Amino acid sequence: MSGAERLIYLPLGGAGEVGMNAYVYGWGAPGKERLILVDCGVTFPDMDTTPGIDLIFPDMSWLIERAERLEAIVITHGHEDHIGGVAHFWPELRVPVYCRRFTAHLAQRKMEERGADAEQIHVVEPYPETLETGPFQLSFLPVSHSIPESSALVIDTPAGRVVHTGDFKLDGAPVVGEPFDAELWHDIAAGGIKALVCDSTNVHVATPGRSESTLVNNIRDLVLQSSGMFVATTFASNVARVKTLAEAGREAGRSVCLMGRAMLRMVQAAVETGVLTDFPPVIGHEEAEDVPRENLMLIVTGSQGERRAATAQLSRGKYLGLSLAESDTFLFSSKTIPGNERGVLRNVNAFSEMGVNVVDDSSTLYHVSGHANRPDLEAMHELMRPQMVVPMHGEHRMLRRHAELAASKGIATIVATNGTMLDLTGDAPVVCEHVETGRVYLDGTRIIGALDGVVRNRIRMALNGHVMLNIIFDEDDELLGDPWAEVMGLAETGRSGAPLVDLIESETGQFLARADDKLLVDDDKLDAALRRAVRQVAVEEIGKKPEVTVVISRLG
Amino acid sequence: MSGAERLIYLPLGGAGEVGMNAYVYGWGAPGKERLILVDCGVTFPDMDTTPGIDLIFPDMSWLIERAERLEAIVITHGHEDHIGGVAHFWPELRVPVYCRRFTAHLAQRKMEERGADAEQIHVVEPYPETLETGPFQLSFLPVSHSIPESSALVIDTPAGRVVHTGDFKLDGAPVVGEPFDAELWHDIAAGGIKALVCDSTNVHVATPGRSESTLVNNIRDLVLQSSGMFVATTFASNVARVKTLAEAGREAGRSVCLMGRAMLRMVQAAVETGVLTDFPPVIGHEEAEDVPRENLMLIVTGSQGERRAATAQLSRGKYLGLSLAESDTFLFSSKTIPGNERGVLRNVNAFSEMGVNVVDDSSTLYHVSGHANRPDLEAMHELMRPQMVVPMHGEHRMLRRHAELAASKGIATIVATNGTMLDLTGDAPVVCEHVETGRVYLDGTRIIGALDGVVRNRIRMALNGHVMLNIIFDEDDELLGDPWAEVMGLAETGRSGAPLVDLIESETGQFLARADDKLLVDDDKLDAALRRAVRQVAVEEIGKKPEVTVVISRLG
Repeated sequence: MSGAERLIYLPLGGAGEVGMNAYVYGWGAPGKERLILVDCGVTFPDMDTTPGIDLIFPDMSWLIERAERLEAIVITHGHEDHIGGVAHFWPELRVPVYCRRFTAHLAQRKMEERGADAEQIHVVEPYPETLETGPFQLSFLPVSHSIPESSALVIDTPAGRVVHTGDFKLDGAPVVGEPFDAELWHDIAAGGIKALVCDSTNVHVATPGRSESTLVNNIRDLVLQSSGMFVATTFASNVARVKTLAEAGREAGRSVCLMGRAMLRMVQAAVETGVLTDFPPVIGHEEAEDVPRENLMLIVTGSQGERRAATAQLSRGKYLGLSLAESDTFLFSSKTIPGNERGVLRNVNAFSEMGVNVVDDSSTLYHVSGHANRPDLEAMHELMRPQMVVPMHGEHRMLRRHAELAASKGIATIVATNGTMLDLTGDAPVVCEHVETGRVYLDGTRIIGALDGVVRNRIRMALNGHVMLNIIFDEDDELLGDPWAEVMGLAETGRSGAPLVDLIESETGQFLARADDKLLVDDDKLDAALRRAVRQVAVEEIGKKPEVTVVISRLG
Repeated sequence: MSGAERLIYLPLGGAGEVGMNAYVYGWGAPGKERLILVDCGVTFPDMDTTPGIDLIFPDMSWLIERAERLEAIVITHGHEDHIGGVAHFWPELRVPVYCRRFTAHLAQRKMEERGADAEQIHVVEPYPETLETGPFQLSFLPVSHSIPESSALVIDTPAGRVVHTGDFKLDGAPVVGEPFDAELWHDIAAGGIKALVCDSTNVHVATPGRSESTLVNNIRDLVLQSSGMFVATTFASNVARVKTLAEAGREAGRSVCLMGRAMLRMVQAAVETGVLTDFPPVIGHEEAEDVPRENLMLIVTGSQGERRAATAQLSRGKYLGLSLAESDTFLFSSKTIPGNERGVLRNVNAFSEMGVNVVDDSSTLYHVSGHANRPDLEAMHELMRPQMVVPMHGEHRMLRRHAELAASKGIATIVATNGTMLDLTGDAPVVCEHVETGRVYLDGTRIIGALDGVVRNRIRMALNGHVMLNIIFDEDDELLGDPWAEVMGLAETGRSGAPLVDLIESETGQFLARADDKLLVDDDKLDAALRRAVRQVAVEEIGKKPEVTVVISRLG
C-alpha cells in the first residue's frame, strides 16, 4: 500500500435520509482515486415540499464531473431507493452496472423504458464469485431483506476488506430466497474487516427483528377465519410476503388475483429469474369477477395510500370491475412509512364506511420489517468485529444512534452525512473533504434544481393564490383601456361584497390615472408598484397576499 | 312526553373525523325541536388537501338557518377542535355560550379577538349546578382529559338523561384539576341513562389508559440525569404536563422559562382562573440568556412540528436569543398526531445534527394520552349502563369499532356520521334525517366553500405550474404584436434547449397566424384553442400539462 494512496467513502445520497442511496468508494492518490458507485436510488416527493415533482434524485454532479474515474455501478437490491436512478444517470456515467439476477431484471426494464442500453446491466453470481473492477475485488454476499436477492457487498481494497451491508435483516427463514447465513458472514470476517458500512434504519427499535416466516401461520389463520372477499396489500417487491399471502389464499380455497401493475410485474420478474418457483396459480381480474367473493382473494398495490394504486381505487369504489362490500376483509400487511399516514387512513376510513373489516399492522401479527433492529445491528457488529463502523442508510438521528451504539462497544465510528468524504485508510474514519451535494427533481421530463425557484413558486401559488394583471400602453405610452385582472386560487368576492377582480382592476386603474409619466415608462418600477397595489387590495378585501404577475404590453 | 315530540342528535362535525366537533341536540315536534349546540370546533389544514387555508370549520348552514330555534351553545372544554369556531359563528347564532371558568377565559379571548361580545360567554359552575335551557336541564360534570376543567354534559331531556362525555379519560390523579370520580358518575347513572354519547378516539388502543401522574417521576428522573440545557415541548393546553415539567425543572435546580405565545397564554389563563395555584416561578427569555445552560429549562410550543412555533425555530437556530447545543436534551412530551410526522421528524433530525439528545414518545415514559382507551370505554359503558351508546369524536373506523364494542355488550348503538340525524326517543337510536354537511374554509379573512374551486385551483397550480398567455386584438380584430407568455412554477427550458416562454409565444403566434377569422372573433373558442396549444408545447418540451390562463384583450 503506497502511503500516498487512500481508501475513501463518500455518500452522495442516503446518509441523512431514508431514500436515494448513492455511496462512492475510491482508492488511489487523493483526487485520483478510482471509484465505484454503490446504489443509485431515488426518493419520493410530497405535497409539502415538492408539489408536482415526479421523482427526487441525489445531485450527482460531483461524480458526473469525475465520470472518467468511475469503474462501475453496483446495485445491492431492487428497491427504488437503491435502483431508481440507474437508468436516469447511466447516460452521464457510462460504466457497466453490476447486480444479481433479479435486480438486473428490474434494472434492465428501467433502462429499456428510458431508451438506454439494457445490456449495460450485468448479472453477477453471488459470493464466492468475485468481480474485479479497478482496484477493487467485489462480491455480492446474499443477505435477507424485504425483496429477493438483496446483497451485501464484500469490497476488497488495498487497504483491507470493507463490508457494505446494503439493506438487511438477520432472517434465518425468509420464505423466499437465501436465509441469513451467520457462518458464511463469520468466514468473510475471518481475515479481519476494515470497515463495516452498515444500514441504520431500525436502530431505534430495541427488540430483535422477527423472521418473515413468523407471519405464515398468522396470515393463514386470518384468511381462514374471514368470510367475504379477502384483500391484502403489501409492497409488490416483497415477493416473500406476496407468496405467503397467495398461499394462505390457496389453503383457504380461494382463487388468487394479483392487482396493480407493480404487483404483476414483480411476481413476473421473480418467476422469470427463478426466484419464485412454486407460486400458487393466479387468475386475471376478468375471471375474478365471476368468482363468489368468499372464494376470492385479491393481492393489491397501494399499501402506502398512493392515490392511483389499486388500494386507493378500491377505497373509492370499483377497480377493474371489482369492489369491496360489507363483511369483506382488507389486510394491510405493511407498515405505514412516516409521512404517508394521512393517505393510508383515508383509505382505511373509506373501507370502514363500506363495512369492510380492516386489519392493520397494529397487532404486529401480519407484518415484519426488512431492516435489522438495534440488537441485530449489535449482533452484526459482533459477527464482523470491524475496525470501524460507518453508519449509512438513515436519517441523521438514526446515523447518530448507530454511531453511539458502535462507540459504546469501543469500535471506531463517525456520523458521515451526504457530502462528507471519509478517509478509511487509517485506524479510524477521518473526514477528508466536504463535497457539495443536494437533490435534483424530475419534473415531467425535465430535471430541475431543488433551489432554482420552480418548486418555491408552486408552493407560493398554492399558499397565496395568483393574480395576473395586464395593462396595455399605446404607441404614445398612453394607457389603452383599463387594466385587466385574472385570479386563480382566490376567493371570488371580498369584504366589500364586490368581485375581487373588479376591485383590483378599478384600484390599479385609479393608481395608473394618478401615476406620473416617469413611472409609466419604467417597466420595472411600474411592475413593482402595480404588484404592491394589487396586494394591498387583496389584503384589505380577503386578507391574503397573493403572488402577482404583471404583464405590461407596449404597442409602441 | 307527547308522542309527537322527539329527542334528536345531529353531529355537524366531529363524527367521522378527529376535529371540528359540533353536535346538535333537540327536543320537540319534528322540525320544531328546540336546539342546543354542544361544542363549536375547528380543524387544521394541510398542504395535501387545503394549501393556504387558515382554519377549517364545519359547515353550519343547517343550524344557522334554524338559529331562531337554538337555545344555547355549550362548550365542553377549551381545545381548538371544541372551542375554535365559537367566536366565528357566534354572530350568526347569537345565543348565550355556556362553559366552565377556564374554558370561558379562552372563549372570551377569542370573542375579543374577533370583535365579538365577550359577555356572551357565561361561566357555569360544575355539577350539581344545573342550567335550564329550553327543554333541557344541563350540568357540567368534571372529567379528566388533557386540558383543565374538561366536562362531560349531563343533559336531562323529557325523553330521559343523556350523557355526552366530551373528550375524556379515566384519571384518578390528573396532576391538575378534578380526578375522575367514578362514584359521582355512578350516582349520575342511578336513575338510568337514555344515551351515552361517547368519545371514540382511542378505541383501537387495547391497553388501559395511564394516569397523568405516572409521568411525574419519569420526567423528574430524566431532567435530573440531564446535563446541558433541558428543553421540553408539549401541548400548551396540557397545563398538568406543563406543571409536571416545570416542577421537574425546579427540583433539578433549573430556572424555568416558558416560550411560545400559546404556552404563556395558557399558563396565564390557568393561573388567572385559579386552576393553577402553585406553578413554579418562571423567568423571561431575556433573563434566561444569562442563566448557565445546565441550570436552565425551557418549556416550549411546537410539539407537532408547526413551522412557526418555538420548537421549529430552535431547530433552525436561535429563538428569542436562545439556541441549543451539543449535549443539551430535547424532550417531546407529546405524541405526534398522524399527518404531522414529517414536520416533527424534520425538527428531530435538525436537533440530532446539533448533537442534541432527543427523547421522544417511543419509550411511553414521558407522555400519556388524554383519551379513554378501549378498556376504559368498556368501563364507562359498564358504569353508565345506558340504553344506547352513540359513538362520537372519531374517524369512521373509530366510530365503527366503538359501536361494535357496545353491540358486543348488547347495548343498542349505531354509527352516525356528520349529517346523520338520530331520533333517540325510543329504545334504540334511529336515523330520522340526513342533513347536508361539509366543511368551510377560513382563507385570510374570507370564508370559502370546500367545493367552490379555490383550493382545487391552488392544488392544480402547485402540481402543474401556471402559464399566462396574453394576446391583443386591435379595433379591426387584427392581432396586435405577438402573444406574450409568462410562466410560474415551471422549468425554464425544455427538451429543445430554448426557453419555454419563447416556444409558447412562437407556437401560439404561428397558431394564430394560421387560424381562420371565425375563430379569432370567438373568445371562448379561441381561449380553448390557445390553452390546448400552450399545453401541447409544454407536454412536448417539459412533459407537463400546466394550468393555462389566456387573456384576450380587444381594443375594439
